[in-house]
Amino acid sequence: MKVIRSPKRIQEICMSLKKERKIIGFVPTMGYFHEGHLSLVKVAKKKSDVLVVSIFINPTQFGPKDDFKRYPKDLKRDKRLLKEIGCNFLFVPDIKNMYPEGYDTYVEVENLTRLLEGVSRPEHFKGVTTIVAKLFNIVQPDIAVFGQKDFQQAVVIKRMVKDLNFFVKIIVAPTIREKSGLALSSRNMYLSDKEKNEALVLYQSLNLAKKMIESGERDSRKIKDRMKKLIQEKPMAKVDYIAINDSETLRPLKKLKGDVLISFAVRVGKTRLIDNIKIKV
Amino acid sequence: MKVIRSPKRIQEICMSLKKERKIIGFVPTMGYFHEGHLSLVKVAKKKSDVLVVSIFINPTQFGPKDDFKRYPKDLKRDKRLLKEIGCNFLFVPDIKNMYPEGYDTYVEVENLTRLLEGVSRPEHFKGVTTIVAKLFNIVQPDIAVFGQKDFQQAVVIKRMVKDLNFFVKIIVAPTIREKSGLALSSRNMYLSDKEKNEALVLYQSLNLAKKMIESGERDSRKIKDRMKKLIQEKPMAKVDYIAINDSETLRPLKKLKGDVLISFAVRVGKTRLIDNIKIKV
Repeated sequence: MKVIRSPKRIQEICMSLKKERKIIGFVPTMGYFHEGHLSLVKVAKKKSDVLVVSIFINPTQFGPKDDFKRYPKDLKRDKRLLKEIGCNFLFVPDIKNMYPEGYDTYVEVENLTRLLEGVSRPEHFKGVTTIVAKLFNIVQPDIAVFGQKDFQQAVVIKRMVKDLNFFVKIIVAPTIREKSGLALSSRNMYLSDKEKNEALVLYQSLNLAKKMIESGERDSRKIKDRMKKLIQEKPMAKVDYIAINDSETLRPLKKLKGDVLISFAVRVGKTRLIDNIKIKV
Repeated sequence: MKVIRSPKRIQEICMSLKKERKIIGFVPTMGYFHEGHLSLVKVAKKKSDVLVVSIFINPTQFGPKDDFKRYPKDLKRDKRLLKEIGCNFLFVPDIKNMYPEGYDTYVEVENLTRLLEGVSRPEHFKGVTTIVAKLFNIVQPDIAVFGQKDFQQAVVIKRMVKDLNFFVKIIVAPTIREKSGLALSSRNMYLSDKEKNEALVLYQSLNLAKKMIESGERDSRKIKDRMKKLIQEKPMAKVDYIAINDSETLRPLKKLKGDVLISFAVRVGKTRLIDNIKIKV
């Protein structure tokens, strides 16, 4: 595996690979891998001739109250894990190479980003779409893999790819969970044992929603209320939002119909956790 | 010359050409060609193996008061002229293929677009950078040619290309003028004979500025005042702005130094004309 820091260099390499008709698979990450990241990397490996992974803690997608400065890092371990999977190129740019002086250009998906995560993190998706557009232009992947865990992100990226005519196929890979059901997240490391234990209610609330739907419930309000009640039984859990939306347009649904996304953000102690399930109704 | 309407189709063709290691030259236009456009096309032809020209009257770059609906068209003539130059592919998409239902993504250069043309046309450059980003992703050019006439546009596009890591070289080709000095523009056709005659003052004002600088004048205010006075002698001419800026950063200059851009927008009758010169001081 080659580790490359220069955007120009990896871009030239990828351009050459394209001209050799290699299929480039790509997974953009912020590093500090858990099994969730690695599952995306494995999917990309399977579907490509050459696998490129990027590690870049992107400042523009963090809000002023977010955890940019304390975001965890372990490049040495990340490298070892990528090598084991057979990653060919690891792209690890510096901030000053990605956002040089006078940087002035942003990519924004305007409406899909106003709801759900966009409400409490208004600049977040603008940072995500900007960095992903940059990385797509640098790496020129044929396929790129994102996680179902950040569902809205995947929907927004797909919209951007379609709208801006990027020549890349987006694959959304399933959420990886602990045995307890807790979705893997780099932010789980911030949880104390007690908080982690309380956080198990989150997956339980998704299962509750699923069971209600299986029993015929179609009223969005009723499902969200039951979920909220269950989560609020935990003293350290504070619901930011619970939402039920169309899984493609993200339109909020009063009555459940079609491909439905049930999602939430909940603070457990100081740590904000998100999770979701997609259900065909 | 092949005429192609489908973005997917031309994208596939261009991707194949890239893999055959062809150099793709590209000129994005809104059609209704004059010698100015054709000069850009000729530059691109010289520097490429395969020449792609697009004709698309892009709705998102017109403001509500702009001339989108009456923008002139003559596709038959345009085709003939392109064939004569040896254009290989003419891409003429429909609006609904470029901005399909649910379209939601925009590319914006934020600061460079707030001044000069951006003051009176606040959404204009956002429309330009969005369509050019789309066209770059579709055509995947190695080089793309823009005109010096729309100087700020060229600066903004270069900024976008650098910031979003597009793999394309931007060439800025000189402004083509009538013998009288009037810069060629599709909008000149809106001018009556009398208006056109008065519009000659515009080039004269640029020459005046040039002479003042050659005589040692470095005070931006004085140059702009003299230009304004000259233009205002024509009863149908109304100055929108006259500006002197650094030609790369577009920073307004009080004292002239370095690569300087002298530019203006002036309404002659109902028609808004722009022109500029770049001078090394």
